[in-house]
Amino acid sequence: MLDSPVRGFPVKEFEARLERLHKLMSTKGLAGILLMSEPEVRYFTGFLTQFWQSPTRPWFLFIPVDKKPIAVIPEIGAALMRTTWIDDIRTWGAPWPKDDGISLLQDLLDPLLKSGARLGVMKGHETSLRMPLGDYERLMSGLAGIEVVDATDILRNLRMVKSAAEIEKIAYICGITSRTFARAGDIFHKGQSLAEAFRAFRIECLTQGADDVPYLAGGADQGGYCDIISPPSNRSLESGDILMFDTGATFDGYFCDFDRNYAIEQADDLSRRAYDTLWRATEAGLSTARPGSTCRDLFQAMQNVISEMDDQGGEVGRYGHGLGMQLTEQPSHAVFDDTVLEENMVITLEPSLNYSEGRIMVHEENLVVQNGKPRLLSVRATPELPIIGVS
Amino acid sequence: MLDSPVRGFPVKEFEARLERLHKLMSTKGLAGILLMSEPEVRYFTGFLTQFWQSPTRPWFLFIPVDKKPIAVIPEIGAALMRTTWIDDIRTWGAPWPKDDGISLLQDLLDPLLKSGARLGVMKGHETSLRMPLGDYERLMSGLAGIEVVDATDILRNLRMVKSAAEIEKIAYICGITSRTFARAGDIFHKGQSLAEAFRAFRIECLTQGADDVPYLAGGADQGGYCDIISPPSNRSLESGDILMFDTGATFDGYFCDFDRNYAIEQADDLSRRAYDTLWRATEAGLSTARPGSTCRDLFQAMQNVISEMDDQGGEVGRYGHGLGMQLTEQPSHAVFDDTVLEENMVITLEPSLNYSEGRIMVHEENLVVQNGKPRLLSVRATPELPIIGVS
Repeated sequence: MLDSPVRGFPVKEFEARLERLHKLMSTKGLAGILLMSEPEVRYFTGFLTQFWQSPTRPWFLFIPVDKKPIAVIPEIGAALMRTTWIDDIRTWGAPWPKDDGISLLQDLLDPLLKSGARLGVMKGHETSLRMPLGDYERLMSGLAGIEVVDATDILRNLRMVKSAAEIEKIAYICGITSRTFARAGDIFHKGQSLAEAFRAFRIECLTQGADDVPYLAGGADQGGYCDIISPPSNRSLESGDILMFDTGATFDGYFCDFDRNYAIEQADDLSRRAYDTLWRATEAGLSTARPGSTCRDLFQAMQNVISEMDDQGGEVGRYGHGLGMQLTEQPSHAVFDDTVLEENMVITLEPSLNYSEGRIMVHEENLVVQNGKPRLLSVRATPELPIIGVS
Repeated sequence: MLDSPVRGFPVKEFEARLERLHKLMSTKGLAGILLMSEPEVRYFTGFLTQFWQSPTRPWFLFIPVDKKPIAVIPEIGAALMRTTWIDDIRTWGAPWPKDDGISLLQDLLDPLLKSGARLGVMKGHETSLRMPLGDYERLMSGLAGIEVVDATDILRNLRMVKSAAEIEKIAYICGITSRTFARAGDIFHKGQSLAEAFRAFRIECLTQGADDVPYLAGGADQGGYCDIISPPSNRSLESGDILMFDTGATFDGYFCDFDRNYAIEQADDLSRRAYDTLWRATEAGLSTARPGSTCRDLFQAMQNVISEMDDQGGEVGRYGHGLGMQLTEQPSHAVFDDTVLEENMVITLEPSLNYSEGRIMVHEENLVVQNGKPRLLSVRATPELPIIGVS
């Protein structure tokens, strides 16, 4: 195992994030912003816990335009929140269905948000409302005269460009997962059920130093797989299967997200050709991933190659996305996304194509946009479909 | 490894769930119900994938009061959804921010929901809106004349009582995690960092047969830990530490959720006493967990013992909860919850107390309510705080 990066971030990183947020809020005329989703609360506080998996309790962070964030959270999280740089922490004995933080929020927001003030809330693409809708409606009806503004773009723009410390964490977990894939020939074998293969991959990834492997999907079938989001089945790997593993492993709350394809003992010609096409599509993406290119440019560069085999545009809906605190983040490499790439954006390239009667193949790499060539964080896939299980 | 239960469910299980839902919908006068959260979509379809971790795409299931569910989902999920018992599957090329399924929903709902019809949506405690709020607002403004009704209770009542097949899956993962904890003396040792201990525990749990360990939190400190939701740190285990691991491992999409406490080499008197109190509180809970008792009764039975050391009621907010497709489900063992226990409810007992200057201790078991004594799914914790690392 390599030495791992330091966990957490220095306070100055949070101060810098807050300063950038305050500037964007001023531009939009926002008096405050109310956040309640895991990545956003963590981004401004450092509050990292898997406890969000319990749907029982809502968690709130209110950020005034001119002050530090104020946490309004269940008492069970107070000890952990006190280890962060946040000093205004207001708690209640959650769960308390009749008033799960709502009157605390009301008390906080009422004096800050005068009638006519603009309150930012995330309502746009790729967001959810991580609190009961009924409670949200009650809170808003109590904040009379407030104008609610969609703040999705502000958060999106902030989070897309990563700091050096964030990139270090993502690079570290990409390295761990690359070393895990490098052992594919030892991990996977004919006759192994997919459920066993998933388990063996997870164990190897942890052994190599991952904190966790929250996302693992895979497929295997004769002459190509038909689905890329399936859980493990008891189907056994057979000679002639094309096997794909797609992995989101984490270190200190940061993700990698890339996949690899293997042929078990032998590969059919169409799958070889699909692999070659995707590999070259990724090369085209790598050549295009420069500051100043748009995500649409990235899509088009990959699509130009993919159309040799598949001109339908695929069913994945895009050819890659942002990466960091979540398995997938904005932007999307798609025709609808004209985000301009900037230095220190961390993205995936994820071309896919349909071939041979419902079969799909995906290919994915992780990189940092920088001046000149991008920095690959995943160890580049081999140019030819690797065959495993031949002794 | 024991033989694992069959993955998935027979179609008749989904038919039974739907029949029960239709009856409850009729009682409430609902013309249809719109679901979009992972457990609910899975409960009625069998659609199991970790892909929900990507926030990019919404997924919808509409269930008319007199027909089978209709899936309105991103194209990337079509192949997997076609393996379920659902036959009406409508897809779009998501992500497509300008219209991420909304016009498909509109086309589906418009003819079904005449003016004045009641549409069920989950808006209550423990729910989130798993789609962009802006899209929800647009959808609802397009469904003129529809009355939106909170359907949380319907889903809550359906999901709380488990089928035999569900209980088998939960029992299986509880057995795996019990065997993992039984090896605590081999896994944990003085000088090991908490990050290493987490990793070793996850690997052992997978080795014992878990599909995944989505939730793992723990704490360790001299004479007791102060926090129960923390991620791993680099702090090393020391003699005199009280170590707690709380685990949500999964098999086929079903969770266990229980914790264990250990003293490293030696235990202080107060921690021994806290452990004994919680163990006896759990015994009181086990005696009370019968059909006909309420969750409030369960809380009170445990609180009567806990108040020997701590009469504050704790900061966890409850002494256990439901368990199944999620790490925590309804109901809550708390003063506010008068849910009456029924046969085949799967619940946790999770008493906790505060002691010795900010220290907290938790204790947790998993069980099925049945006539007579409950069936323990976790192997009962030892009556005395176990000490590990003494050779």
